[in-house]
Amino acid sequence: MPSDPSDPPFLVAAAAAVAEAVAATAAAAAAAPATATATATTPATVETVPAPSVSGASVPAPSVPEPVAVPEADGLQRILRGPSGLGTGGLFRVSPLPERLPEPGAEVPGAPEASASLPEPVEGVPVPGLYFHPVAEPDPVRVAEVSRRIKDWAVDEVDLFPDEWEGQFDGFSVGRYMVVCHPDAPTVEHVMVATRLMVAENAVDDCYCEDHGGSPVGLGSRLLLAHTALDPVHTTAEYAPDWAESLGSDAPRRAYRSAMRYFTELASPSQADRFRHDMARLHLGYLAEASWSQDDHVPEVWEYLAMRQFNNFRPCPTITDTVGGYELPADLQAMPQTQRVIALAGNATTIVNDLYSYTKELAAPGRHLNLPVVISEREGLSDKDGYLKAVEVHNELMRAFEAESAALAAACPAPQLLRFLRGVAAWVDGNHHWHQTNTYRYSLPDFW
Amino acid sequence: MPSDPSDPPFLVAAAAAVAEAVAATAAAAAAAPATATATATTPATVETVPAPSVSGASVPAPSVPEPVAVPEADGLQRILRGPSGLGTGGLFRVSPLPERLPEPGAEVPGAPEASASLPEPVEGVPVPGLYFHPVAEPDPVRVAEVSRRIKDWAVDEVDLFPDEWEGQFDGFSVGRYMVVCHPDAPTVEHVMVATRLMVAENAVDDCYCEDHGGSPVGLGSRLLLAHTALDPVHTTAEYAPDWAESLGSDAPRRAYRSAMRYFTELASPSQADRFRHDMARLHLGYLAEASWSQDDHVPEVWEYLAMRQFNNFRPCPTITDTVGGYELPADLQAMPQTQRVIALAGNATTIVNDLYSYTKELAAPGRHLNLPVVISEREGLSDKDGYLKAVEVHNELMRAFEAESAALAAACPAPQLLRFLRGVAAWVDGNHHWHQTNTYRYSLPDFW
Repeated sequence: MPSDPSDPPFLVAAAAAVAEAVAATAAAAAAAPATATATATTPATVETVPAPSVSGASVPAPSVPEPVAVPEADGLQRILRGPSGLGTGGLFRVSPLPERLPEPGAEVPGAPEASASLPEPVEGVPVPGLYFHPVAEPDPVRVAEVSRRIKDWAVDEVDLFPDEWEGQFDGFSVGRYMVVCHPDAPTVEHVMVATRLMVAENAVDDCYCEDHGGSPVGLGSRLLLAHTALDPVHTTAEYAPDWAESLGSDAPRRAYRSAMRYFTELASPSQADRFRHDMARLHLGYLAEASWSQDDHVPEVWEYLAMRQFNNFRPCPTITDTVGGYELPADLQAMPQTQRVIALAGNATTIVNDLYSYTKELAAPGRHLNLPVVISEREGLSDKDGYLKAVEVHNELMRAFEAESAALAAACPAPQLLRFLRGVAAWVDGNHHWHQTNTYRYSLPDFW
Repeated sequence: MPSDPSDPPFLVAAAAAVAEAVAATAAAAAAAPATATATATTPATVETVPAPSVSGASVPAPSVPEPVAVPEADGLQRILRGPSGLGTGGLFRVSPLPERLPEPGAEVPGAPEASASLPEPVEGVPVPGLYFHPVAEPDPVRVAEVSRRIKDWAVDEVDLFPDEWEGQFDGFSVGRYMVVCHPDAPTVEHVMVATRLMVAENAVDDCYCEDHGGSPVGLGSRLLLAHTALDPVHTTAEYAPDWAESLGSDAPRRAYRSAMRYFTELASPSQADRFRHDMARLHLGYLAEASWSQDDHVPEVWEYLAMRQFNNFRPCPTITDTVGGYELPADLQAMPQTQRVIALAGNATTIVNDLYSYTKELAAPGRHLNLPVVISEREGLSDKDGYLKAVEVHNELMRAFEAESAALAAACPAPQLLRFLRGVAAWVDGNHHWHQTNTYRYSLPDFW
């Protein structure tokens, strides 16, 4: 199996180690109906991403808390072969794109004009000592087109924000964010599926929980009712219309409802179910954090980290296969080893957010919990030392993610799983890139 | 396909309508490796359950809000064939029971003695006008053995309750509850998996939310930290031990942790993931209800019904396949039609709880929301008329569940799906039976 120049180094190494097994798998798959589908999902547009290099962080290699338990031989062999034969075509299917949606950016009139009004990407400063992989700026044509379409959606389809929030919406640079996180998305419309969900998730967080009128009071009710835009209510003929109408009654619910509709046009039922699960986790995380906020309570560091595994970016990398136009089969996704890799990736990306948004949150009214603040408070450290320890926590999570991902790739080199692991790694790297370069939102503290 | 005398009538009818398709499927399956597994999972002990008859409720047939959309022909055919061939054996596997666990009840010494201390089942009065299917009392030998083992587990393994709560634990009759809800469980240990989870779920509800020291204050944090006993935290070497230790720090978490360990010994990773998702839903439901309680707010009826779809029995019927010793494949479970059937079944069973616990909740301190109370308050009805309208809501949900289940069975007669639908129906009927006959906990209001 030739190494792909865009692969993260840890996966290149893992792929080399299992090249023989993969070749055998590929040969076996060549006779199966799945192959044609896999070929059809090769990205139509290939972003050029240079091979990433490791930054000069001086953090020692972490100990890995729970080594991956490799499945027993027969179970592993069963997984490696993968479903095939009659009736398994659905596991590999790619839904056709809805015909009414226009095709990729370069072909759409108006894209260059739209890009002129967007903030220019600025190269920000990475957190010193942070372990991350730099990536190149994403294709500006695709970024401009996603940015144009997402604003049209926000304004015309879901009436997301009043005029005075337009600057914040543009400053979010969500088009650039999602394009850099999904380098293997075959079309602009695939990226749009991720972009709408990201915008909707931020709308719920901002309007219900945080910056724009959010409050912990009554949050449990608001989040559950919003969650029903993702996970529908099944009730009687008398009461169903009131529920359905409620989904149009505020911007967060309109955004969830619309973004979910587009998503389920691309996603298989299992992919949609997996996303709903991650959104239930996210909402549980919001509610745990809100309960501390209501009591003005600072949790233990381990409690904060547990909460932050739920109030987490996880719903975003978890859809990398849908956005990439393929499906990680449900039984591979549910394996404890896969779950651990996804959780570690989500945790690393989420602590990146804590580190880059540190000064923004300090400047906001009230105390906003983040990992540096909780470490400083609970462990009696200075602001600077709390921050630096949070960087170490991130680095250990990031290295654990890579170690577990490589171990899983070696143990179970099913093609969809390898691609999924690459997709999660790309999301992690893209997420860091966006945080580092989004100087509209973020700036670093003066600790160095 | 011969009709099974224990099948609910609506499934018998559906099965007859699709007998030809099923026969064709069975013939095709005869050559596949799955067949041997299916044969091996035939229950070792068969409870004798008479064919249920419909009660004389005079409620008109409901309109069904959202008719099931039958999958398109090629997708349906793909599902009907089911996964087969190389690599799909795992979709049908049954985990072997752990060797250290003793075998079914009749062979275990001490069971008759244990049963002597249990409350005698008493035939309670069903709610007048309720649409339900009566079932026979479950096998008393199996009930006695499950009751003995669950008390040993609660006392010796998880230190669940102080001595003074023993009467309440016995009065819960959870052994009888779970035996009647899982008539196809092949062994006592399979029933135990459901029974431990049911006890653990009640411990969390009682200790965190309701009767025994529960409170809406700080509930978001408590529930999330308890949820990590089901959905583990992946964090750094420094903080992981504090988290792991926390899972032993109170009875609800000890119960979740232990019950989940036993469950994951039987369940496939996909079955475990599905259960975690339903538990996240349950905890979201608790938190929505708590937010209303904190504000002393009575929601709209549709809002209450939405919340009650989450604060719901759903995690219990959803594991019927694990408890039955087989697996509903993840892709069949995730289909929107299956999801709708599960949601409707969960909603009907949960309103049964509202109806039977009405007087118990009225007698408890504070206002306890349930469907009759919310209808009376929001629609200006008397207590009696609110209650009677809640009965109608239940009946419509129950009939919608049966109609959708029959439609799904006809559209997709995969053997595991048919068995799963039978299992959910058995759970619904068993749940009603337990509520009707548990006069230790429940009594009806004087409305007739």
